Amino acid sequence: MHHPLDVVAVGNALLDVLTAGDEAFLAEHGMVKGAMVLIDADQADRLYAGMGPAVEVSGGSAANTAVGVASFGGDAAFVGRVRDDQLGAVFAHDIRAAGVEFPVRPATDGSPSGRSLILVTPDAERTMATFLGASGELTSADVDDAVIGRAAVTFLEGYLFDRPPAKEAYFRAAAAAHRARRRVALTLSDVFCVERHRDEFRRLVREQVDVLFANELELCRLYEVVEPDDALAAAADHCETVALTRSERGSVVLHAGARVAVPAHPVEHLVDTTGAGDLYAAGFLYGLTRGHDAELCGRLGSLAAAEVISHVGARPVANLAELAEPLLG
Amino acid sequence: MHHPLDVVAVGNALLDVLTAGDEAFLAEHGMVKGAMVLIDADQADRLYAGMGPAVEVSGGSAANTAVGVASFGGDAAFVGRVRDDQLGAVFAHDIRAAGVEFPVRPATDGSPSGRSLILVTPDAERTMATFLGASGELTSADVDDAVIGRAAVTFLEGYLFDRPPAKEAYFRAAAAAHRARRRVALTLSDVFCVERHRDEFRRLVREQVDVLFANELELCRLYEVVEPDDALAAAADHCETVALTRSERGSVVLHAGARVAVPAHPVEHLVDTTGAGDLYAAGFLYGLTRGHDAELCGRLGSLAAAEVISHVGARPVANLAELAEPLLG
Repeated sequence: MHHPLDVVAVGNALLDVLTAGDEAFLAEHGMVKGAMVLIDADQADRLYAGMGPAVEVSGGSAANTAVGVASFGGDAAFVGRVRDDQLGAVFAHDIRAAGVEFPVRPATDGSPSGRSLILVTPDAERTMATFLGASGELTSADVDDAVIGRAAVTFLEGYLFDRPPAKEAYFRAAAAAHRARRRVALTLSDVFCVERHRDEFRRLVREQVDVLFANELELCRLYEVVEPDDALAAAADHCETVALTRSERGSVVLHAGARVAVPAHPVEHLVDTTGAGDLYAAGFLYGLTRGHDAELCGRLGSLAAAEVISHVGARPVANLAELAEPLLG
Repeated sequence: MHHPLDVVAVGNALLDVLTAGDEAFLAEHGMVKGAMVLIDADQADRLYAGMGPAVEVSGGSAANTAVGVASFGGDAAFVGRVRDDQLGAVFAHDIRAAGVEFPVRPATDGSPSGRSLILVTPDAERTMATFLGASGELTSADVDDAVIGRAAVTFLEGYLFDRPPAKEAYFRAAAAAHRARRRVALTLSDVFCVERHRDEFRRLVREQVDVLFANELELCRLYEVVEPDDALAAAADHCETVALTRSERGSVVLHAGARVAVPAHPVEHLVDTTGAGDLYAAGFLYGLTRGHDAELCGRLGSLAAAEVISHVGARPVANLAELAEPLLG
């Protein structure tokens, strides 16, 4: 297990609990459409009790990205924390079965494995309420510098910033990556996450991040500006590469001073947007680690995002390497 | 909670663990395509370890039928056994969220909640390996005669015959139903299940069953005949109603001496046949409890089966009452 890795992703190990919902349900439970809110165990029990019949499928933002990289044929690992319970066993099975190295042992104490309760509205938008559980108890002790050092890119999800010990794990991972002369990538994850951690995110982006993923709202809120172009310029001052995702309008990539606009990949049936950003990052990072140019990286991201939003669940069902053949030749 | 019920279903409380698989995987693991085999905890661990990433969704044959009845707008209850663990909580949530009364408390000791590992091959056929766990530890003490007495039909799944104490629970439920002058329905479930329990199934059908569900192979093996018509005639000697399902050729219903052939409902995209028989029974029993004739009962069965095989998972996603409006007027 000491081969080189393309990407090691660090983030929340979560099981997604997906159900169809309507706007009235979101309003009744104080959920903001399209966003992620953190909830405690009691809130999770209450919300779950009100939800319709659900489907359980492994998720977690950075974990989905790692699975996407593996589906492209890349070598990926995931660092995150589950308990030694049934949901943790499901998470561990699914990520390994997807070909991703998962080097963290299940915790024998602490909170139960985390889960994200996800309402998918008729417009295919997903709204999430996450009980972090064991995943939020990740500490820097769970980060093995040797695993980080094997990866061309260490990819961090912003969501994990919601727990201070997990934040330490990030800084440790980023430092280990740079010591090994590797790249660090970050996704801002969610606009509320940005609001909660603006100062620290800015510091992280300034000091540690080589590749930044964000959507327009997240990046604008990070720099407290109105125009995405202004936010892009600010980020590009600090990061080698910035990929700004714009939903159905594709993405804009700033890389080494050049700007490339990348179209979205066509989607026949939009079903569930869960995982769109995670899979964009997967395609982009796979392309980057294989030495492709910024435009092709963006196209691989668009391709992977289109696949994942055409079905329920945040991990690819199709083989992304096969789907990417027309692009990679 | 003392309103009358249309159907109380008694069976295994299982979580389905669904994954795509190919014929080679089935062969390697000694699985017979289309059938259900029982496995122990160790075998389940080994098989699961070899399986690809999966989706978890509540299942269990009779439980699926109860959910189908509720989706038609009927009043349904389910009697089955889970442990007080995470998978048991998922099962209990899903069946209650579907509007089904679930009056059995989770067990505080014994095996973990049961699960069915399901491989769906590219032809949409499902092959199952079931670890019964807590569900196989159902005893007659879990059957509340008062619940049985409230239901117009008590529906039993053949699968539960694989555990002697559960079998006692069946005989108790059937006896309670008849004491309350209610109907008893049985599904033979699986041809291997019939082979394992032929004599007892024949006795049950002869002495206790008013409504029998079976496919052609199951019914032929029950009476050890070659021609489905001969098997139908034998069953009709003992049961008021026999519904013989024939996959894409629809079903044949023998009721009160008359024979009706019912066509299959058209299916646009066949995705996963899991639950086809369970949902046929749901539509049929809903029609029966509402006083409809044999042909309409069969058509409601075909409609529900068509819905469930057009997506992954063994419980309806669409509202069956709405789908049935053109038939029910």
